[in-house]
Amino acid sequence: MSAMPAPQPIRRQYKDEVIELLGNRGVSVNDIAELVMLIQKSYLPNLTMDACRRSVRKVLAKRETQNAIFTGVALDMLAEKGLLPAPLVDMLRQDDGLYGIDEVMALAIVNVYGSIGLTNFGYLDKSKPGVVGRLNDPRSGQVNTFLDDLVSAIAAAAAARLAHHERDVAD
Amino acid sequence: MSAMPAPQPIRRQYKDEVIELLGNRGVSVNDIAELVMLIQKSYLPNLTMDACRRSVRKVLAKRETQNAIFTGVALDMLAEKGLLPAPLVDMLRQDDGLYGIDEVMALAIVNVYGSIGLTNFGYLDKSKPGVVGRLNDPRSGQVNTFLDDLVSAIAAAAAARLAHHERDVAD
Amino acid sequence: MSAMPAPQPIRRQYKDEVIELLGNRGVSVNDIAELVMLIQKSYLPNLTMDACRRSVRKVLAKRETQNAIFTGVALDMLAEKGLLPAPLVDMLRQDDGLYGIDEVMALAIVNVYGSIGLTNFGYLDKSKPGVVGRLNDPRSGQVNTFLDDLVSAIAAAAAARLAHHERDVAD
Amino acid sequence: MSAMPAPQPIRRQYKDEVIELLGNRGVSVNDIAELVMLIQKSYLPNLTMDACRRSVRKVLAKRETQNAIFTGVALDMLAEKGLLPAPLVDMLRQDDGLYGIDEVMALAIVNVYGSIGLTNFGYLDKSKPGVVGRLNDPRSGQVNTFLDDLVSAIAAAAAARLAHHERDVAD
Repeated sequence: MSAMPAPQPIRRQYKDEVIELLGNRGVSVNDIAELVMLIQKSYLPNLTMDACRRSVRKVLAKRETQNAIFTGVALDMLAEKGLLPAPLVDMLRQDDGLYGIDEVMALAIVNVYGSIGLTNFGYLDKSKPGVVGRLNDPRSGQVNTFLDDLVSAIAAAAAARLAHHERDVAD
Repeated sequence: MSAMPAPQPIRRQYKDEVIELLGNRGVSVNDIAELVMLIQKSYLPNLTMDACRRSVRKVLAKRETQNAIFTGVALDMLAEKGLLPAPLVDMLRQDDGLYGIDEVMALAIVNVYGSIGLTNFGYLDKSKPGVVGRLNDPRSGQVNTFLDDLVSAIAAAAAARLAHHERDVAD
Repeated sequence: MSAMPAPQPIRRQYKDEVIELLGNRGVSVNDIAELVMLIQKSYLPNLTMDACRRSVRKVLAKRETQNAIFTGVALDMLAEKGLLPAPLVDMLRQDDGLYGIDEVMALAIVNVYGSIGLTNFGYLDKSKPGVVGRLNDPRSGQVNTFLDDLVSAIAAAAAARLAHHERDVAD
Repeated sequence: MSAMPAPQPIRRQYKDEVIELLGNRGVSVNDIAELVMLIQKSYLPNLTMDACRRSVRKVLAKRETQNAIFTGVALDMLAEKGLLPAPLVDMLRQDDGLYGIDEVMALAIVNVYGSIGLTNFGYLDKSKPGVVGRLNDPRSGQVNTFLDDLVSAIAAAAAARLAHHERDVAD
């Protein structure tokens, strides 16, 4: 283990790092904000895209969200490079229908804004609008088994947050 | 508390009782099996309605499912009769958007067949096909704040069970 | 249903109401703060009782917590009065070992401050220190099947919150 | 990616593989069965070690359990070898107190036998008896951030299973 990097102190916050990591995988804050607008506009007619982006950033500022993103994206990338052991590498590369750890990890994000986000998470994950659809397109050349669920969960949590803080919807 | 009934021994199994209770609230095993068929037929082309009904009955045989149904339907019926304290009675009668205990209780059912059912639960709860739509119709005259989520969860769990036991899909 | 009260508008916040309701059932903010001190003092040596009480109040200000308390305590009180149908009334009055909806509802509270509170919730619920032990004493004359889990969950969430916001531990 | 192995078909079952993987990390079926005996013997006086081992094997036969073990142990081993990106590698190597994805993944195992296992999971994870304590000993030379939670979860699920199937406790 000669190449082992020196241990780094762990910070409380990694918001900028997760935004950069999501960007490297093809997902912007704006992409997720569009999902929030899609699911909340019929309930909150004054909702602005600025408010949606702000809510996504609030969700990304939670350490629970950051932990799930770091872990899920690392697994996607290791599967891409063939660096996971079998049969895990095959489950992730083939997005195996009986593998549900991606949903479990996504749920941890949803729960931070309470259980009212559960329904929207499932809806986004199944109907795959916008960026979720692009992540599921095999032509992306990426393994996104975790990332598509994480993105749906961030959007569902940001929508739940807006429902809880209705005064934040407009600018 | 002169009217208190004598304590009864608790059994391990209440499958017949929950099927009867669901029937009294307007939901049959067949209604739920139709939801299972809807979400699984594209993955399991040989799936029969008999197999769907059998899978629903297996989910209803789990004590965790029975506990959730007894509790949720009791809350719905007490809200209907105005026998719950404020503000809970108002949250349930108005199906308050910030009340998520119904989703929490439904999730306990979904989890029994693993996390792969989460997505289908959210999808059914949001798109409200078949019996879920009828339960959400205010003309039903019932409070179904818990019941619609419970029914979506039973269907999602029964679909996950079929995915795990593919050999059971045909007769 | 001539006695049905007029529907009331639902507020966003019921913090004062849940503190009063817990008080009526024999649980003070201070009782819960003592549990927080017990589980966090070895990690946060400067932790004060004031900081513990403040953290408990923050958890009680979350709507998810309030929903769980209103629902769980209503079920306890209805079981006490024999106003729930069989077999649910017997499960709650006998704190049936196969009934886990109380744990499910408690988990919704824990999750609001992230998954790191799970362990402390289980520990408090099993070892029953302080007020949790008093709630489990049959001589209390109350049905506390839900309340003891809710109190353990509030304490676990308040401890997780302090871990996430370490600067708040002292005054 | 010249070293990429050819994709393998995914099976329904990997029970033998997870028992071998746990063994390679220093955990036997018997080690976990001892935890089951510890937490259930006061409730089930006729409980035998054979019944505990059988219940552990039933939990290990669930695909949800297998998915969680493959994923968590892979993360532990990659952290050990320094093959995860920062800051994830540091969180896992230092078992960071604000990282809770290990608890989240363990919960997926517990839930398969219903919510009654939640309390025992937290209790084992906190009090660290038997093999859980050995896994937490820094002298093990391993990163066991996920494994100790997974082992506690398997034991809690196996205990919940015995509570649900009381007739299986003796031989």
